[in-house]
Amino acid sequence: MRDSYHDRLDLLMADLLEMTDRVRTAVQDATRALAEADVQLAESVISGDQAIDALASEVEQTGFSVLAISSPVAGDLRMVTSGLRVVMALERMGDLAAHIAKIARLRYPDPAVPPRMMDSFLRMAEVAEAMVATAGRTLQDRDADTAAQLDANDEQMDKLRRDQFVEILGDDWDEGVAAAVDVALLGRYYERIADHAVSVGKRVVFLVTGIQPSEQN
Amino acid sequence: MRDSYHDRLDLLMADLLEMTDRVRTAVQDATRALAEADVQLAESVISGDQAIDALASEVEQTGFSVLAISSPVAGDLRMVTSGLRVVMALERMGDLAAHIAKIARLRYPDPAVPPRMMDSFLRMAEVAEAMVATAGRTLQDRDADTAAQLDANDEQMDKLRRDQFVEILGDDWDEGVAAAVDVALLGRYYERIADHAVSVGKRVVFLVTGIQPSEQN
Repeated sequence: MRDSYHDRLDLLMADLLEMTDRVRTAVQDATRALAEADVQLAESVISGDQAIDALASEVEQTGFSVLAISSPVAGDLRMVTSGLRVVMALERMGDLAAHIAKIARLRYPDPAVPPRMMDSFLRMAEVAEAMVATAGRTLQDRDADTAAQLDANDEQMDKLRRDQFVEILGDDWDEGVAAAVDVALLGRYYERIADHAVSVGKRVVFLVTGIQPSEQN
Repeated sequence: MRDSYHDRLDLLMADLLEMTDRVRTAVQDATRALAEADVQLAESVISGDQAIDALASEVEQTGFSVLAISSPVAGDLRMVTSGLRVVMALERMGDLAAHIAKIARLRYPDPAVPPRMMDSFLRMAEVAEAMVATAGRTLQDRDADTAAQLDANDEQMDKLRRDQFVEILGDDWDEGVAAAVDVALLGRYYERIADHAVSVGKRVVFLVTGIQPSEQN
């Protein structure tokens, strides 16, 4: 027989995993909207962000009510406080995917990204999606080892971003100022999604080991 | 006579207010480093961010130990959970001030911002500093009314940012791609500092009224 305390903890985790899934899809769709100048898809990412925000709000209320009613300790307390941190990261990732989609919408019917840069963004999206998926999986499996490795994936993202700067600031950049600005901001959004995945990873390490993120490597 | 429970709550609030002060100073100094191409000041903002991070980590550990040991309820519980959210926003604001300083350092001895744009950034910094100060003050005074008004200040920031885009994407922009990219990213950093101040304001409203941010206007 289940009690409402454990039901609430299960709901919290289920909502977080659902958010992870939706964020991953949002990143994927936003990137496709960018690559194919698909304004309908961009719109659906932008409106879909509300569902992510609604889930975030549900996680917050669940977490808060568990703290208020049940005063969990040890592992359960870590799960709730970590959940309340992870949910902020996931909500921001959803916002960032929506920002990407908004740039695709803004430039429509033109593509927002010059063809020569699109491969780089597809690779950024690949890295970001994989990191979001890994973050979700490690949360579900309480896999601190894999969670701690998200930092290494983040280095790929940083490298992709540095390469983009070399392109847009190079002498043979002939796509103009607006395209360069779009590339710089889009690159920033993907980079931030990856950063948030790393921070989720740190929370997973804390959840499993009890070691505070600031004391982790 | 004080007990350690209330000492911990007082410490948590004192650390948050100290962070608010340091963030405001960091924004101010980063902007001066930008305006005056002052690389020493930029360095001091960048290294000063570690002190902000250390305070953040102290707040987290204090908050977590209060939850674990004392299982606070009602207003005290809201204070701890809000504190754990506010600290993330303040930590990010510190990072963003450091990002601004890093652009000043990167372009040194040249100014990162073309003279024609500097007024706009000085105004952005003014708005951001005022918002950070207001966020801190409303936290200290538990002033939900003023906290709720931070949204209106944020509109000034958004307007400044839109005006910057008009400049850098206009036909008479002759400062080149690199300067336009710097302006776009710097503008983004100031805008995000303001966004975080708004989110602190929402937490203050929650702290005082018990109304969740998602249910606030």
